[in-house]
Amino acid sequence: MKTLIIVAHPQLDNSATQQFLKQGATLAQATWHEIGATQSTASAQEQRLLQQAERIIFQFPLYWYTIPAQLKQWQDHYLTTKFIEQKLIGKQLGVVVSTGLPQTAFQAGGRVDFSLDQLLIPLQALAHQAQMTWLPIFPIYQFAYLNEAEQQQLLMDYQRYLSQDQPDSLVKRSQWYLQQLTQLNATATDPLVDLLQEQLNQNLLQLETSSDTLKLIKAGETDNLE
Amino acid sequence: MKTLIIVAHPQLDNSATQQFLKQGATLAQATWHEIGATQSTASAQEQRLLQQAERIIFQFPLYWYTIPAQLKQWQDHYLTTKFIEQKLIGKQLGVVVSTGLPQTAFQAGGRVDFSLDQLLIPLQALAHQAQMTWLPIFPIYQFAYLNEAEQQQLLMDYQRYLSQDQPDSLVKRSQWYLQQLTQLNATATDPLVDLLQEQLNQNLLQLETSSDTLKLIKAGETDNLE
Repeated sequence: MKTLIIVAHPQLDNSATQQFLKQGATLAQATWHEIGATQSTASAQEQRLLQQAERIIFQFPLYWYTIPAQLKQWQDHYLTTKFIEQKLIGKQLGVVVSTGLPQTAFQAGGRVDFSLDQLLIPLQALAHQAQMTWLPIFPIYQFAYLNEAEQQQLLMDYQRYLSQDQPDSLVKRSQWYLQQLTQLNATATDPLVDLLQEQLNQNLLQLETSSDTLKLIKAGETDNLE
Repeated sequence: MKTLIIVAHPQLDNSATQQFLKQGATLAQATWHEIGATQSTASAQEQRLLQQAERIIFQFPLYWYTIPAQLKQWQDHYLTTKFIEQKLIGKQLGVVVSTGLPQTAFQAGGRVDFSLDQLLIPLQALAHQAQMTWLPIFPIYQFAYLNEAEQQQLLMDYQRYLSQDQPDSLVKRSQWYLQQLTQLNATATDPLVDLLQEQLNQNLLQLETSSDTLKLIKAGETDNLE
């Protein structure tokens, strides 16, 4: 999976969240593309980057309930109707959005009164015009309050968001973890990793069997109803 | 009604729509405030302008399904949580948005697949945080295709959007037209204007009587139901 992350942050170097995510991007072998306050690269170059990717991620902090100005500048400067309607078809569009507000703020009656899905509809409309597949938003709430275990979980989930097949499922997640372990084992042999790998393999087989059984049951029920 | 129009357009001088609307703003005695690509004024000055207004209007062309970059820059630069939560309470927030697409594009299944209300939710969230009253959006679809009669209608509707009491109603609209005629008559005496004024006055009386009657009927029905 060739993933391009378009990173827009007014104070990138001072952002603990972005510096943390950068590790995950490296591990997931995604392209980390920081965009500045001015548009210095040629359009052709910027558009080529987008064309080369299979999954494009807009990554930014929520500023006044939408993307920061510099990402909007980037869009207004580099995107053209012709380009997005012809060159991005079938690619995936994801969003990694960080906010200092808690998850509970983003609902009717909550502090913001709207969901992130609602606030980011303009990006969804862009995906619609480009005939891209819209990925579920990857939100990061109050990064500063995460403890170390939560941060590790976030780093893993972020890597999966960048590189795992979508839509997400228990089977795909298990396959992804197995793949990571296999890669790990290829470089360093560790009996614990062997055991984990074996365990995950068994889980996966079990999952696939259960899933098939469920399908049969459901199919049976449908037959009965007809 | 003290109305402030914050005008954001990347090519303001070349925009026929904006030059046309400017006449309406003058007639409605609203403050026309153009914001450029850079933020040169002091924050205090810009915030004072906002504080002095009773109705604040964001006026812009739709760019990639949302506000143009320069308006986002203005927001990111001048607005602070403290300012908007303390100084804008009770004011009205309106939006005048122009687009080259037809009205039919803005619906599920239409070309854009979303309504303007949905696309501009981030501004609605801003109004919510500031405890401002959100006015219905004033959309201008395909200005270039309007004939002269349609343009004149637009100019009148735009002036009403800037200066008439909200929410809009038949009575308030008639009152607004009557007020315009009275002002016109004060400067130039014209028997036709007298006649129009008389006619509007009678219509308004008739409207108010009908409205009262309707209220009585409705009240009666409610009594019967109880």
